[in-house]
Amino acid sequence: MPELRQNLATKEWVIVSRERAKRPEQFKTEKVKKELPSYTETCPFCPGNENKTPYETYVLKRNEEWKVRVVPNKFAALSSGGSLERRIEGLTRWMSGVGIHEVIIESPLHNVSIATLPQGDVGDVISVYKNRYLTASNDPRVKLVTIFRNHGESAGTSLEHPHSQLIATPVVPSHIRYRIEEAMRYYDDHGECVFCSMLSNELKVKERIILETVSFVSFVPYAALSPFHTWILPKRHIASFAEISDVEVEDLALNLKTTLAKFFYGLSNPDYNYVVRSLPIQERECEYYHWYISIVPRLTETAGFELGSGMFINISVPEENARFFREVKVE
Amino acid sequence: MPELRQNLATKEWVIVSRERAKRPEQFKTEKVKKELPSYTETCPFCPGNENKTPYETYVLKRNEEWKVRVVPNKFAALSSGGSLERRIEGLTRWMSGVGIHEVIIESPLHNVSIATLPQGDVGDVISVYKNRYLTASNDPRVKLVTIFRNHGESAGTSLEHPHSQLIATPVVPSHIRYRIEEAMRYYDDHGECVFCSMLSNELKVKERIILETVSFVSFVPYAALSPFHTWILPKRHIASFAEISDVEVEDLALNLKTTLAKFFYGLSNPDYNYVVRSLPIQERECEYYHWYISIVPRLTETAGFELGSGMFINISVPEENARFFREVKVE
Repeated sequence: MPELRQNLATKEWVIVSRERAKRPEQFKTEKVKKELPSYTETCPFCPGNENKTPYETYVLKRNEEWKVRVVPNKFAALSSGGSLERRIEGLTRWMSGVGIHEVIIESPLHNVSIATLPQGDVGDVISVYKNRYLTASNDPRVKLVTIFRNHGESAGTSLEHPHSQLIATPVVPSHIRYRIEEAMRYYDDHGECVFCSMLSNELKVKERIILETVSFVSFVPYAALSPFHTWILPKRHIASFAEISDVEVEDLALNLKTTLAKFFYGLSNPDYNYVVRSLPIQERECEYYHWYISIVPRLTETAGFELGSGMFINISVPEENARFFREVKVE
Repeated sequence: MPELRQNLATKEWVIVSRERAKRPEQFKTEKVKKELPSYTETCPFCPGNENKTPYETYVLKRNEEWKVRVVPNKFAALSSGGSLERRIEGLTRWMSGVGIHEVIIESPLHNVSIATLPQGDVGDVISVYKNRYLTASNDPRVKLVTIFRNHGESAGTSLEHPHSQLIATPVVPSHIRYRIEEAMRYYDDHGECVFCSMLSNELKVKERIILETVSFVSFVPYAALSPFHTWILPKRHIASFAEISDVEVEDLALNLKTTLAKFFYGLSNPDYNYVVRSLPIQERECEYYHWYISIVPRLTETAGFELGSGMFINISVPEENARFFREVKVE
C-alpha cells in the first residue's frame, strides 16, 4: 500500500510509492560522465580566460592566485541597472526586471566539484556566498536573494566548470510567501520554529539522518519529494543565511562536502540542484523561520500529475535513502 | 530590460527575459520523431492486447469496436482498495495511499494524438474524461480529481500509444489550496471570479488570444511561465469540470484539438503536458473558481532558481507566442 506523508514545514503531501519503489542502489546514474581535464582553453571560467567574462564583482585570492571569482552573469535574467518601477494598468501587474544575477566560479580548476574539493576550499566558496548575499541585500531594490547550484546537464547547466549562481529579485515570490505563512502559523500554534521542531525530532528518531556535524545536520525529510531529496539545517535557530558565523561556515563546508560526496560516490555523480532557502537579511531575527539548504538530485522526471496537483510521487523510501547514504564511504 | 509580470489568478511572478528571448520559430523541436505504425504487436494499449492491461473500468464503443478504453494503471501511484486512514504520531502526518489511478486509452490507433484525431473522436475522449471524473468523485475517499496528459518522452511518458491519466487523491494538496485562497480573495475584493475577469480582459486586448470558439478561449497568459504556456478557459463560469455540458464537450474538442494542432504543426510536435484544473464536484457552484486546461510544452529546462524561488524565467514573449500560433495554418 502506498503512503501519503506530509512535510511539517511546507505542508506538502507526497505519495511514497512502496510498490513502485526502487532500491537505493538502483538510482545510480548509468550515464558515464566523461573525465574532464583540469583546464580547458575554451572555458570562459578557466584561468587565463578572465576577459571572456564580464568584469568581476568580487574575488577571493590566496597567494596572488584567485580561488573564487564572482562575475555578473553574461546572460543575466535581471538587469543590474535601472530603477525599480511598478505599473498597474487595468488588470495587469508589471515591474521592471531589475536585480542581480551573478556567477560564483568556485575554483580555478575545471574538473572539481563541491564533493571533491578540500574542505577549506568549500569553506571559501561558502564565505563568498555570504559576502555576495550581504552585498546583494544592500541593494534597496532587492527583496529576496536566492543562491543555487546546478550540477550537470539535466540540472540545467551548460557550463562544466564548477560554479554557483545568485539571483536577487525585486519581489518575494508567492511560493516563498506561502512557506513563510505556514511557518508563522506553526509558530503561533506551538511557540517554536517548525524547523527547530523538525530537527529535534529527526535527531531523536535518527533513521533519516545522513550526517550530523557540530553545527549542521543533513537528512532526508520524512516527506521527501523525490529520491534522495536532502535538507541540511543549521542547529542554531537563524532565519537568514546572512547570519552564518565563520565557525559555522567551516562546519557547513564539512557537512555539505561530505553529503555531496555521498551523492558522488554512492550514486555515481548524479546531476543535482541545490538551493539556499533563507529569509532576507532584514528579517534575520524572525523567530518562526530557519534557513537551510535543499538538495534535489535529478533522478526521476516530473510529469502532468505533479504539474497539476503540485504533489509528488516518490518512488523510493526516505528511511532507506538515508541508511544507504550513511553507509556510503567517503574518501 | 527584462520584465516582471504577475498572473492575476495565481499571483505568481515571472521574469520575461526579452534580451534572452528567442523568436517563436526557434522553439521548433529539432529532435526528429520517428514515424509510428498504426498498430504495434507489443503495445499493451493496441487492440488485440486487451489482456495485457488490468480489466477495463469503462469502455466507449461505436459499431462493436472500442473507441476509448479506460483501465486501472498497472503501476498505480495510489491503491484502489483499502480504507482511508490517518495517523498523527508526534510530528508526523500520515495517510494510507488510497485513491484512483486510471489510464484513458484515447484511440485504438497507435499513431494518433489529440492534435490529429477527428473532432468527433476528441469529443469522445473528453466525454470519457467527464464520465471518469464523475465516477471518481463518487468515491467518498476522493478529495481531488486530476486529469492530465503526458505527450512525449521528456513529458514523462514511456508509452507511445495515445493516452491520458486520471489520479484521484484523498487530499487537496496545498498547491491547490493556495490557488483557491487567491481566487477567494479576488472574489471578496471584486465581487467577480478572477478567471472571468481575466478572460474578458484577454478578449478585449486580443493580443494573447490563440483561438476563440463558441464556448472556449485558448490564450497565452500575460504572465506565462514558459514559452507557449497556454490556457483554455470555458466562457461560462463553472468551477468544476464535472459540469461541462454535451454541447461544450463538442466545442472543447474543437478548441483543444485545434490549439494542439498549432503546437503540432507550428513547433514540430513538441512534447507537452496538459492538466485539467478543476474544483471537486461538491464545490461546482462555487462563485470564485473556474475550471480550465493548462498546457505546458516541454521546450526549456527548469533549474535551481525555479526550484528555490518558485519563480520562472520565460525566454519568450507571450504576445509573440500567441501571434505565431494565430498564424499557424492547421490542416
